[in-house]
Amino acid sequence: MDDQAGLEEASPEIQARIQKSFDRQGLMGHLGARISHIGPGRVHIVLPSRPEVTQQDGYFHAGATSAIADSAGGYAAFTLFPEDTSVLTVEYKVNLLAPAVGDHIEAVGTVLKAGRTLTVCRLEVFGAQDGQRKLVASGQQTLICV
Amino acid sequence: MDDQAGLEEASPEIQARIQKSFDRQGLMGHLGARISHIGPGRVHIVLPSRPEVTQQDGYFHAGATSAIADSAGGYAAFTLFPEDTSVLTVEYKVNLLAPAVGDHIEAVGTVLKAGRTLTVCRLEVFGAQDGQRKLVASGQQTLICV
Amino acid sequence: MDDQAGLEEASPEIQARIQKSFDRQGLMGHLGARISHIGPGRVHIVLPSRPEVTQQDGYFHAGATSAIADSAGGYAAFTLFPEDTSVLTVEYKVNLLAPAVGDHIEAVGTVLKAGRTLTVCRLEVFGAQDGQRKLVASGQQTLICV
Amino acid sequence: MDDQAGLEEASPEIQARIQKSFDRQGLMGHLGARISHIGPGRVHIVLPSRPEVTQQDGYFHAGATSAIADSAGGYAAFTLFPEDTSVLTVEYKVNLLAPAVGDHIEAVGTVLKAGRTLTVCRLEVFGAQDGQRKLVASGQQTLICV
Repeated sequence: MDDQAGLEEASPEIQARIQKSFDRQGLMGHLGARISHIGPGRVHIVLPSRPEVTQQDGYFHAGATSAIADSAGGYAAFTLFPEDTSVLTVEYKVNLLAPAVGDHIEAVGTVLKAGRTLTVCRLEVFGAQDGQRKLVASGQQTLICV
Repeated sequence: MDDQAGLEEASPEIQARIQKSFDRQGLMGHLGARISHIGPGRVHIVLPSRPEVTQQDGYFHAGATSAIADSAGGYAAFTLFPEDTSVLTVEYKVNLLAPAVGDHIEAVGTVLKAGRTLTVCRLEVFGAQDGQRKLVASGQQTLICV
Repeated sequence: MDDQAGLEEASPEIQARIQKSFDRQGLMGHLGARISHIGPGRVHIVLPSRPEVTQQDGYFHAGATSAIADSAGGYAAFTLFPEDTSVLTVEYKVNLLAPAVGDHIEAVGTVLKAGRTLTVCRLEVFGAQDGQRKLVASGQQTLICV
Repeated sequence: MDDQAGLEEASPEIQARIQKSFDRQGLMGHLGARISHIGPGRVHIVLPSRPEVTQQDGYFHAGATSAIADSAGGYAAFTLFPEDTSVLTVEYKVNLLAPAVGDHIEAVGTVLKAGRTLTVCRLEVFGAQDGQRKLVASGQQTLICV
């Protein structure tokens, strides 16, 4: 959905590997998140609006926003990792730029620098409402291949 | 629970204000998190282990870990804010130091620097198992009083 | 120099305001840094290679790399601030992606989100050698208008 | 100087290894910084006030503040690394909590979590004037052993 028209898709094998790992993340299912795009070095995750993901003013909670951002970046890195490896988040930093509102939010993780041990991703989260998108969070993440 | 024996408690008014705001955070209830301590400039939040908060290897998801860390830091700042204000997270950074495992994890948010506009908190998350505690995440957060 | 051909320039008044403030930063002169571009919401700063800015292996020191990144982001924000205000760095985070080598490095600060109180910038630093440019550092910065 | 009375000292071999590496950092000498303490997992670096390290208002430049913080953290990690390794900064984040003023500033790098590959340090910088110390910057840093 959203703006991934024209984006390059990862191979079916890699897409299957990412989706299988995602399906094992209890938190993603519990929040109601789903993957909306898997490309080489780039993964999108969508989280629909619902009361279970809000903070005290009814916006998406920064924890929900960054949970899908963290997973999007982790899987973006994972698309570039060799088979039989796994990915762990070393650290991330995120700025909450605007109240996260909308029908849903979409996190986009993009590999900035791929390395043998460490990979660095850019994290962006957009609020989407009536076909309009607005950047609501932006960050950067370091991942390790183990 | 855990190590808050001997910690200073915030006033009943402030405790009530924090708890009321927390109860309106849909995400915290949905995750199963609860406040375990409210002191002046310091708040603890506990999250019990359950499949709904895991990543693909069964550990606590970094998103769950940082969601309670973000709320703990936000409420730690909020204990020092004037009435009729509210608190928003500007940004935070967190390092995942070790796999987050245990019966539960506990986030501790502590005000490092309180300001009229901006407040900076230290964020720590401990994994707790059989009475043992281990630091599993550490970070820093900037909040704004609005 | 480098790739700013075609970039939009800020007004002469704004350029003069930025340059005047920069000239008062003792550290920038001491390092040998100079401004190479001032556009609306975007500033570039160049630092030539010299032994006085190295770490123990002869690369640009992370402190020098981030000093010019911090100034580039601060001035990028400052181009959008009203007259009679000043800019302070609240915080920044930077990943050192590759050894910073080259004839010179160039920091690019770009406003991601401009606000009345807080502004968030993207920070990038490139190493330049023989006309080739490589991203050596990437980060994000929060600034306050006072 | 300052508050390191009573702090544990690293072995003479480790102290010599750190000092030798520090002396090869052109930037530290150029700024006028010097090591004031080397303990196991903890290093202090002092930077005296001089016009060459200021920003536009005459305070210590955030770039100078974070340059010595970065070196203090890097060397704190390095005290725990095996011989024949070296240390590189992966990333760091720093909050500038207050204007950095004083006769000198002192950065304290402390290992929070030592790992075989990655080490995480806490970074603190104090402004010192007439025997008074004030926390002016606080951050967190990830380092890699290579």
